[in-house]
Amino acid sequence: MRTEWIAKRRGQANVSQMHYARQGVITEEMHYVAKRENLPPELIRDEVARGRMIIPANINHPNLEPMCIGIASKCKVNANIGASPNSSNIDEEVDKLHLAVKYGADTLMDLSTGGGNLDEIRTAIINASPIPIGTVPIYQALESVHGNIEDLTAQDFLHIIEKHAQQGVDYMTIHAGILIEHLPLVRNRITGIVSRGGGIIARWMLHHHKQNPLYTHFDDIIEIFKKYDVSFSLGDSLRPGCTHDASDEAQLAELKTLGQLTRRAWEHDVQVMVEGPGHVPMDQIEFNVKKQMEECSEAPFYVLGPLVTDIAPGYDHITSAIGAAMAGWYGTAMLCYVTPKEHLGLPDAEDVRNGLIAYKIAAHAADIARHRPGARDRDDQLSEARYNFDWNRQFELSLDPDRAREYHDETLPADIYKTAEFCSMCGPKFCPMQTKVDADALTELEKFLAREEEAKKQPVA
Amino acid sequence: MRTEWIAKRRGQANVSQMHYARQGVITEEMHYVAKRENLPPELIRDEVARGRMIIPANINHPNLEPMCIGIASKCKVNANIGASPNSSNIDEEVDKLHLAVKYGADTLMDLSTGGGNLDEIRTAIINASPIPIGTVPIYQALESVHGNIEDLTAQDFLHIIEKHAQQGVDYMTIHAGILIEHLPLVRNRITGIVSRGGGIIARWMLHHHKQNPLYTHFDDIIEIFKKYDVSFSLGDSLRPGCTHDASDEAQLAELKTLGQLTRRAWEHDVQVMVEGPGHVPMDQIEFNVKKQMEECSEAPFYVLGPLVTDIAPGYDHITSAIGAAMAGWYGTAMLCYVTPKEHLGLPDAEDVRNGLIAYKIAAHAADIARHRPGARDRDDQLSEARYNFDWNRQFELSLDPDRAREYHDETLPADIYKTAEFCSMCGPKFCPMQTKVDADALTELEKFLAREEEAKKQPVA
Repeated sequence: MRTEWIAKRRGQANVSQMHYARQGVITEEMHYVAKRENLPPELIRDEVARGRMIIPANINHPNLEPMCIGIASKCKVNANIGASPNSSNIDEEVDKLHLAVKYGADTLMDLSTGGGNLDEIRTAIINASPIPIGTVPIYQALESVHGNIEDLTAQDFLHIIEKHAQQGVDYMTIHAGILIEHLPLVRNRITGIVSRGGGIIARWMLHHHKQNPLYTHFDDIIEIFKKYDVSFSLGDSLRPGCTHDASDEAQLAELKTLGQLTRRAWEHDVQVMVEGPGHVPMDQIEFNVKKQMEECSEAPFYVLGPLVTDIAPGYDHITSAIGAAMAGWYGTAMLCYVTPKEHLGLPDAEDVRNGLIAYKIAAHAADIARHRPGARDRDDQLSEARYNFDWNRQFELSLDPDRAREYHDETLPADIYKTAEFCSMCGPKFCPMQTKVDADALTELEKFLAREEEAKKQPVA
Repeated sequence: MRTEWIAKRRGQANVSQMHYARQGVITEEMHYVAKRENLPPELIRDEVARGRMIIPANINHPNLEPMCIGIASKCKVNANIGASPNSSNIDEEVDKLHLAVKYGADTLMDLSTGGGNLDEIRTAIINASPIPIGTVPIYQALESVHGNIEDLTAQDFLHIIEKHAQQGVDYMTIHAGILIEHLPLVRNRITGIVSRGGGIIARWMLHHHKQNPLYTHFDDIIEIFKKYDVSFSLGDSLRPGCTHDASDEAQLAELKTLGQLTRRAWEHDVQVMVEGPGHVPMDQIEFNVKKQMEECSEAPFYVLGPLVTDIAPGYDHITSAIGAAMAGWYGTAMLCYVTPKEHLGLPDAEDVRNGLIAYKIAAHAADIARHRPGARDRDDQLSEARYNFDWNRQFELSLDPDRAREYHDETLPADIYKTAEFCSMCGPKFCPMQTKVDADALTELEKFLAREEEAKKQPVA
């Protein structure tokens, strides 16, 4: 289906979903997305046309099952994987992709930074993936000049970007928003610049005393993106790396530039989402989301966390799930997961699982709080199963059925599922779910209360 | 010190901190607490007198290191332990206490429900504990009538309550707020009544068609509490057991009664905190906190979670830490932890650790968001250590140094601490903390930018 639709578009000057939406066309991708989200196709089209929603779907990614990112639809979750210079095995990365999909990732970023076979790994991931794939091409650009930042040229960037686009990458982080005049603003920060790509651009600008080449060549990138329908994920190079640095002048100056770039891409019907922090105290999260909407004309916001405290390395899937849930509630469209290994080491399979579930929780809690139609249905069904001691059903409805079963079975045998009206937490006599207030007894009680009420009204003899 | 001060008070008709505070006295406990919180002793006294803060400190708990619970002070965390009928070993419970203290519990509830040696376990815990101990005496009351709820009498309750008070319990959950007329309000709930104590009282009222004996004998309980300075933790029997049931009529009707009981206890200078939900969607948390303040005249709020979604058994320390952090930010005084085993089984030592750290994160994030003086100091210090690659210092400042070290050392050896300017997450070349914008280079850049600015102003020749 999608293949035919793509064939029709191939060779057109602009093949982006936004381009078709703005012509009033409902693409196959929009129909597919509308079904998944249980929303009218017209709404999807209008949101894409308006730039408030994106459907990242490179025409060279044919096995993709299209999805959308935007405030009108359910909150999404992104997982990061990637080969490092020390470990780069194609099968391993494809396994990580499957794991991420199993635990509910809506999109996946391949953040591979080295190992020599980056192109092969990327191609394997794209071909195997039903979900959109994002990349940060600056990492490979740096590899291409053997790590010598000052040697990078605009042509190096454009060359790698075109390659990724041609391979089928659905969205790319482009660090075009950090400008040379923003750099003095980081002076008072504790952790300076903590975006990997942003740091590279910053060092380049400091060395050359020239403007950010991704900014000066932004229109060239737009031209590439139009041909393949790659979506921008505008990188926030100046995102805060600790709660101290949150919402500072540097961050907000870059955000303003990101807004300008958003509108420039929109002029060419190219889809855009905007990346956000980072580390942000809870009382500044709403401000950050609203400010992004204002500066970036409501282009979808895609945040990393944010972590609401810095003091819990080893538990940053939790410090950040708190911020992510709130960000989602305030209107963030996609949450980039953080694993327990953040700041400490390369995540393994179990870390990917823990990070993803924490973020599925955050995104789902956000959908409930935003009153999305049907968002609470699964909660209600699980609560009913819980109240009725239907253990199997309760586990099936869980975000991680294996984990729920495993924890239950640690202290009570599985064969008790059918009969046990308790778990080992409170034991057989004290399970609070046993308090079933019988409807007949309640009716009796109501009659009693009514009689009492009546008696009170009688004059004392 | 405290022993002398207690000796002076022994035998007085009312020995509560509130009683002394209202006479203008700053007790030794208040001085101690003021030092811990870095607040003026007069403020502690005034808050205790006002009822907005409690210092749970039974005069029969001499090894206690007094602490306070209230909106003017740091957000606190409670851990639950307890022997079940299947497992009841004194040493095990005392070990759990030490574990809870190690991971930062501010108070601890002994929720033992059976095993025959409840009194011994309780005494051992109180004697070993530097933190306040809370209990739910209704569990033992039920044991005393061999589990036959309908046989319970007010005297059974009072007998057990007096025993706990005499043993040195610092605060007790008393389910006095659920009234017979509230019961019909639970009809439309999915999970009915999920408070263990509340369920017992509900069944008793349904059977006898009589008012809650803890309500009708509330003044008798006050008399006991005055003698030992036990604080009320007014139980919320009608807390929601799923997001569907949150903020419903039943819950709010009971909350109103809890407010009346708060003021009745205050008339006798008895300290009170009020328990709260439970399961609450994010968008209803602020309402719940504000409503409690309004109905209960700002008596400290002590919430269990709340869980912001029901679909993640196995991860309810996370679903609830999200709600707890927000509740703390909105003004909740103490957060009762939830472990990953919630709804599934009895927590083990590792679960206690995971639950507590999740809640230390929530409470600390709340303190930061409330801008408590100095709340972010530790974050800033850790962020500085992180930026400077001072790994040991970073670990020391962590909420769980052992876990942070363990995760780091999984993929890189410990002997690298002194030299490594990276971890295995991004590897040696891509660590974002390496982007150190040199101050001299920045000064050079600023001069360059100034010259550029100047050049723009020159008229074109």
